[in-house]
This record gives sequence, structure tokens and C-alpha cells, in this order.
Amino acid sequence: MMPNGSLITKKVIAYSFKNLLKQTDFQKISVKEIMTAADYRRQTFYDYFTDKYDLLTWIYHQELTETVTDFIGYEHWTAIIHRLLVHFQKNQPYYQKVLYLPPPVAFDDLVLPHCQELVAVIVADTAGRPYTDPLVKEQQIKFLAYALKGTIKDWLASNCKEDLTQIESALSQNLNHFCGKAV
Amino acid sequence: MMPNGSLITKKVIAYSFKNLLKQTDFQKISVKEIMTAADYRRQTFYDYFTDKYDLLTWIYHQELTETVTDFIGYEHWTAIIHRLLVHFQKNQPYYQKVLYLPPPVAFDDLVLPHCQELVAVIVADTAGRPYTDPLVKEQQIKFLAYALKGTIKDWLASNCKEDLTQIESALSQNLNHFCGKAV
Repeated sequence: MMPNGSLITKKVIAYSFKNLLKQTDFQKISVKEIMTAADYRRQTFYDYFTDKYDLLTWIYHQELTETVTDFIGYEHWTAIIHRLLVHFQKNQPYYQKVLYLPPPVAFDDLVLPHCQELVAVIVADTAGRPYTDPLVKEQQIKFLAYALKGTIKDWLASNCKEDLTQIESALSQNLNHFCGKAV
Repeated sequence: MMPNGSLITKKVIAYSFKNLLKQTDFQKISVKEIMTAADYRRQTFYDYFTDKYDLLTWIYHQELTETVTDFIGYEHWTAIIHRLLVHFQKNQPYYQKVLYLPPPVAFDDLVLPHCQELVAVIVADTAGRPYTDPLVKEQQIKFLAYALKGTIKDWLASNCKEDLTQIESALSQNLNHFCGKAV
């Protein structure tokens, strides 16, 4: 567990970075700019992150943990799907700027593990029996996680054109149907 | 239907472009370079394509039509899946260069329609009964098409690290399982 002060500093740096992304492309943002906008010394950045790729990776992980992981076991998966879609819609202009970046900060790679985590919960809730084969479990959950991630990415790419309630309903129906028929 | 000569010219231009992509990034390739390498007059390019984005879009559509669409109704879907994976593996260095390009040439957008076409065939073959609700049909097929596309894209991004036989077996099992339980 990180001391609270560190987490706050990281979040201030992340906020400054996300704010700069509103006007500037990822490629053109420097650590110096991020830290000037955050009103910190440039050197402080390196106490927390290796480079801006490390920062962006941390933001994905932090925000999706706060949106998905932290609610698993406390909220029904349909509420977590709602929370997740609200997060993406609220941050849509930001995601628009990072959606097509290549590795090591590819959207696909950084969002997939959180989709796998969520799909595993939905399968456990809807499938009616547990997996007996761990390889089949891994393969099926990954397959459905690609479907969840693809649905969200396409929605983001379209500037969240489709209504949140509409996409939420279609997505929950699909997840309920196919996770319920997994195993 | 295009006259044969036109199709051959387009394929020569496409071949030259794909060849240049081996050493040069997409952003840095000019129409002039493509046509010099193809041994054509620069102006000829515009008889067939608007710009290099139009050319890349055409290549996706042409190659996936020749790999998937043209075999629907003639080959079993498992053979088409095999053919599709062989195509991606053979062209992996090329796809590596175009995998993270943004719209209008995003891999996601250009590959998805062909995945939808193939998933529709697999559902018709495995589900045992037809859809009665066209909206559910569209939603479910798109959802599973995202899963198919995501599996392929991840494999390409990893330089096709996993064996073709292994990924083919896992993918066919997943498609058979979930398309069979659609509707």
C-alpha cells in the first residue's frame, strides 16, 4: 500500500497530464510540461514514474481499478457495467486521444485485463456451474473479454454516439446471454 | 465488376505499397514513392485511388474478400477460419505496420465487417434455429465478431507467437461453443 501523500501526488500529475491531452497530442507532451502545469518540480515526476508511458499505464490501471475491481463483491455486475460505461463516456475526449496509441500504451492491452476480471465475475454469477478445465476457463473468459472491450472501444471511437442506456442494455443482454452459456 | 486490367493495376499498386511498408512507416510513404516502385506514372494512381488511405482501405477489403467472403457457401467455416489465420500469419510483418493506425484506416473498423460476415455463417451453421428478432441477431453477431477480431488482433500484436494450430483450435472451439449457443 502506497502512503496517501504519494497517491495524491500521482493523481495530481495524472490530472495535469489528462488536462494537457485536451489540447495536445500524446506524442508532443513532455514531462516538463506536465510538471509545470501541475506546479511541481520536473524531477519529482521521476520519483513516481519512469516516463509518460509509465504514467499513462498507471492511469489506465488506477482508473479501471477504481471503477471495476474495487466494486467486485460489493456491487452486482450490472451496476459495475453501468459504472464502467459512465466512466468511459465522462472521459471520452481523453480516451479519443489515446485510443490508437501503439504498445506499450495500447488501449487493447491495458483495458483487456480489467474486462477479463469482470467477465470472470459475470460467468461465475450466470453460468450455473463452475469450470472443471482451467484452460477452457481461460480461453472462454478471454474470448468474451475481447467482445466486451471491442463493444466499449467502438462506442468510444464513435464519440459515444449511441445512448448510454441503449448500449448498456445491449451489452448487459449479450453478457448475460453468453456468460450464462459459458462453461 | 471491374475490367480485369484495372484489377491487375490495382494489385500491382497494392503490392508496391505493401513492399514499401516493410522498410517505411505508413505516415512517411508518398504516392510518388509507391508509383515509382511500381514503375507507373504518378498520375495513374489517381485513376484508381483517392489517396493512400483509400488504397489501404481497398487492400483490407480486397484481401479479406478473397480470404473469407469468396469461400462462404463453398467451404466449411472451420476451413475459412484456417485460411484467415494463415493469411494473417503470412502477412504479419505488414499488419504489424498498420495495426495501430487511427481512422479512417483503423484495423478494428476495417476487419470487423468481415468478422461479422463470418460469425453470421457460423451461427447459421451451429445454432440449430434461426433468429426471430433482427435486433438481437445484429447485436449478438456484432458482439461475437468483436471477440473474433480481438483474438486475431492480439495474435498479430504478439508477432503470432502462439502456434497457428493452437490458436486455430482455441478459436474454433470458442466460436463453435458460443455461436452454437446464440439466438
